[in-house]
Amino acid sequence: MQEKILDSLRKKYDYVSGDQISQRLGVSRQALWKHIQELRDAGYDIIAVPHLGYRLESAPDRLFEFEVLRGLKTQILGRRIVYFDSITSTMDTALQLGLKGASDGTLIIAESQTKGRGRLGRNWFSPKYKGIYISLILRPEALPGSVSILTLLAGVSIVEAVKEFTGISCEIKWPNDIIIRHKKLGGILTELNAEMDKVNFVVIGMGLNVNNDKSGLISGATSLKEQKKDEVSRVGLLQEILRCTEINYLNWQHKGAKPILDKWREYSMTLGKRVKVYCQSEHIEGEAAGIDADGGLLIRKDSGVVKKVMAGDVVHCR
Amino acid sequence: MQEKILDSLRKKYDYVSGDQISQRLGVSRQALWKHIQELRDAGYDIIAVPHLGYRLESAPDRLFEFEVLRGLKTQILGRRIVYFDSITSTMDTALQLGLKGASDGTLIIAESQTKGRGRLGRNWFSPKYKGIYISLILRPEALPGSVSILTLLAGVSIVEAVKEFTGISCEIKWPNDIIIRHKKLGGILTELNAEMDKVNFVVIGMGLNVNNDKSGLISGATSLKEQKKDEVSRVGLLQEILRCTEINYLNWQHKGAKPILDKWREYSMTLGKRVKVYCQSEHIEGEAAGIDADGGLLIRKDSGVVKKVMAGDVVHCR
Repeated sequence: MQEKILDSLRKKYDYVSGDQISQRLGVSRQALWKHIQELRDAGYDIIAVPHLGYRLESAPDRLFEFEVLRGLKTQILGRRIVYFDSITSTMDTALQLGLKGASDGTLIIAESQTKGRGRLGRNWFSPKYKGIYISLILRPEALPGSVSILTLLAGVSIVEAVKEFTGISCEIKWPNDIIIRHKKLGGILTELNAEMDKVNFVVIGMGLNVNNDKSGLISGATSLKEQKKDEVSRVGLLQEILRCTEINYLNWQHKGAKPILDKWREYSMTLGKRVKVYCQSEHIEGEAAGIDADGGLLIRKDSGVVKKVMAGDVVHCR
Repeated sequence: MQEKILDSLRKKYDYVSGDQISQRLGVSRQALWKHIQELRDAGYDIIAVPHLGYRLESAPDRLFEFEVLRGLKTQILGRRIVYFDSITSTMDTALQLGLKGASDGTLIIAESQTKGRGRLGRNWFSPKYKGIYISLILRPEALPGSVSILTLLAGVSIVEAVKEFTGISCEIKWPNDIIIRHKKLGGILTELNAEMDKVNFVVIGMGLNVNNDKSGLISGATSLKEQKKDEVSRVGLLQEILRCTEINYLNWQHKGAKPILDKWREYSMTLGKRVKVYCQSEHIEGEAAGIDADGGLLIRKDSGVVKKVMAGDVVHCR
């Protein structure tokens, strides 16, 4: 109902009479008033003038289900949304929902996370209303070994969405950091539930700093606001991320890993560079020579030997 | 407390005075009586004779935590047990507990399952007190691609445990059926929760027909009781399965996949046979020529081409 009331108010940028809304939506004036109050509580600035009616002055940049669905250009991703104002971690919730059979494309959104998770058990700082913290449940028909590409696919999709929506160019640092001018804008965490010969579901988590002020960022991080010197619509950016991810996802299903890998190489800041990869207790140094379809980074050591690393942290030597 | 009372009664195969037990365990006679009643309700046949005391006539073959722990010869597997008289599926519970951080080796036991799961979404018939229906949570330090061996490892361990405990020889039909004389004794289902570059945990599910009568078996299935013409202690067999699995598991961690693969080949009824593998809509026919460390079956077609199949159903051509 609140969604329909907002639609009514959004149809013209002027006052809409309460009687008109009540009649069209079949609710009493009293019920309408209550819904308007709830919308105000949620951050919608709606003014009411006797004899004129209601007018929507401004909408908050909240990732409410109906805001994300309004104008969403996808067929699968985000068609079902589970929204939280605050949650421990969208990953944990997505995994639980996945076990319970949540459908392909289900999107878990949180305005903040109290235990946001990053790769290898690290934390992801998730201040309220500042970033995009989401997990997507996907159910590709695939073998467990073939879905590593989805982390690369998610990185490629974020780079494309940020470019399309804000004009800002990001790079990808292996394996899954989204980087602007050597600072971290976002990260991707992909988790898998599978039988040995069948993927049950994959959860792709994305964390992105959007409207964080410089003072609200941890060291080495950046936000789109800091880069653009202006607020960015999180709803609009999320919709664009979902659109780009869906295009790449369908492309992968129809044409395999190659188109994704080609794009990843193009957006990568790691390939061709001299790197040190720290991987548990040891490290490997050499030239980042290539990427494998399973997400492994190929390092050409000075001896000429090529080593593949699957996990670790890259330091770009300068 | 009930465990301690049983230990007292088991110390000698004669009457033990209630006073003696009360004093040793520091409980009142009244409390002792209540515990004895509860043990009787659980199936323990305890007789009480005035002036003589209590005597344990017989114990039920229940997979209670304290029964399984009594004399269990493992360091990791089954040291923490979660027991259910009835449950939908030990796999679902194990996956939920795994997400919540259950420790390495946690064992979920159910006396019956209402929605027991088999490979590829199939059912597993789990009548009460007749079989062993368990899921083991393991947390190996491994990449997702390297844990397929665990399904083979589980099969090898069951074959060894059944042989050791009952003298009966089973065979393994690819990928994970435990077979006696062309009838199915049990199955294995392995599921995985992982990041792209790190296994969080693996759940190995085992379902085994133990004391099912012939009339309580579905077509094509057999039980140890049917084969042995005698009841088999489920507690004893489960302990042996855990022991064998742990030995193989530690062996895999120290020496890699080869010892497991060697044993699997030895116990396999598939290798060297002419087979048809049905895999979704198509099928491949040829000789089962080998097994890969990722669990894939290598089929040598009549053309000489070798194909690897990861999932499917094998029909042995005769």
